[in-house]
Amino acid sequence: MSDIRRFEGNGFLSKVVVADGHAYVSGLTAKDKSGGVYAQTKDVLAQIDQQLAAAGASKARILRANIWLVDISTFPEMNRAWQEWVDPQNLPARATVGAPLAGSGSLVEIMVEALL
Amino acid sequence: MSDIRRFEGNGFLSKVVVADGHAYVSGLTAKDKSGGVYAQTKDVLAQIDQQLAAAGASKARILRANIWLVDISTFPEMNRAWQEWVDPQNLPARATVGAPLAGSGSLVEIMVEALL
Amino acid sequence: MSDIRRFEGNGFLSKVVVADGHAYVSGLTAKDKSGGVYAQTKDVLAQIDQQLAAAGASKARILRANIWLVDISTFPEMNRAWQEWVDPQNLPARATVGAPLAGSGSLVEIMVEALL
Repeated sequence: MSDIRRFEGNGFLSKVVVADGHAYVSGLTAKDKSGGVYAQTKDVLAQIDQQLAAAGASKARILRANIWLVDISTFPEMNRAWQEWVDPQNLPARATVGAPLAGSGSLVEIMVEALL
Repeated sequence: MSDIRRFEGNGFLSKVVVADGHAYVSGLTAKDKSGGVYAQTKDVLAQIDQQLAAAGASKARILRANIWLVDISTFPEMNRAWQEWVDPQNLPARATVGAPLAGSGSLVEIMVEALL
Repeated sequence: MSDIRRFEGNGFLSKVVVADGHAYVSGLTAKDKSGGVYAQTKDVLAQIDQQLAAAGASKARILRANIWLVDISTFPEMNRAWQEWVDPQNLPARATVGAPLAGSGSLVEIMVEALL
């Protein structure tokens, strides 16, 4: 099984899985739930930076992102934090939709896949 | 970075990303929002044809599709347009769920991954 | 097209697609809709076992899972069935969100990608 590497397991999931030259990051929510969508998105994106670094990738190598918002009307706030963070020369494919999230107080969840 | 090719960036995302022999198409919504779910699905699928062609793939090579519907009760209308379009010899894996969408008037969003 | 293998097509989708060393399983819902979320999750996971076996993979090789719940407050019930099933040494990346589902009576839908 050594062709699949798994990081930060919590009994249910791994925060990031590396296989076949790709890094698959779990859907992440903000550690600090006190902020609004802009602050929570920044929080999530900082975690994604960490997970990608642990996997040997980076935001410039993201292929695809899925974003879920508790309230789809907060799309512009999420997008503002996203645009400040994303590498403008290396924009991933992306889909953003509304959805109830599992963590109490979570307003945004993001899942990405990157190439190593 | 030349091992990842990115097409039609808009500052936030690329409409299609090509890497490692796969094409990752962003979640697309209808350009013409005046129609119902059947018409909007046809609109989206025509855009997917274009994006896959630009990437060097085609609908016969789709591996996986994610479909989001604003109103899940419109599933049969979406499915009718889908069945008229999809290659019956090359059916992808697929998941369809309900979700609020970001674009005003959008009733359906579709994201696909294809093999080149 | 022989580099893509497709299983159990139903005119709309294939239950599992195998390509480039990966297995892509469609979003699956419980065959028996009479149970609650725990029972339906077990039902879905048993189907995933079958589909992965047909593809030449197994739950120990799952890279990524997407889970949708009709009622996000049933997250703990889903998670209990998930934890009883998942290989604790091989935890996939995962995202779970709420969403209306297409099948009448379906409470949970799960889509996975595995490495062969």
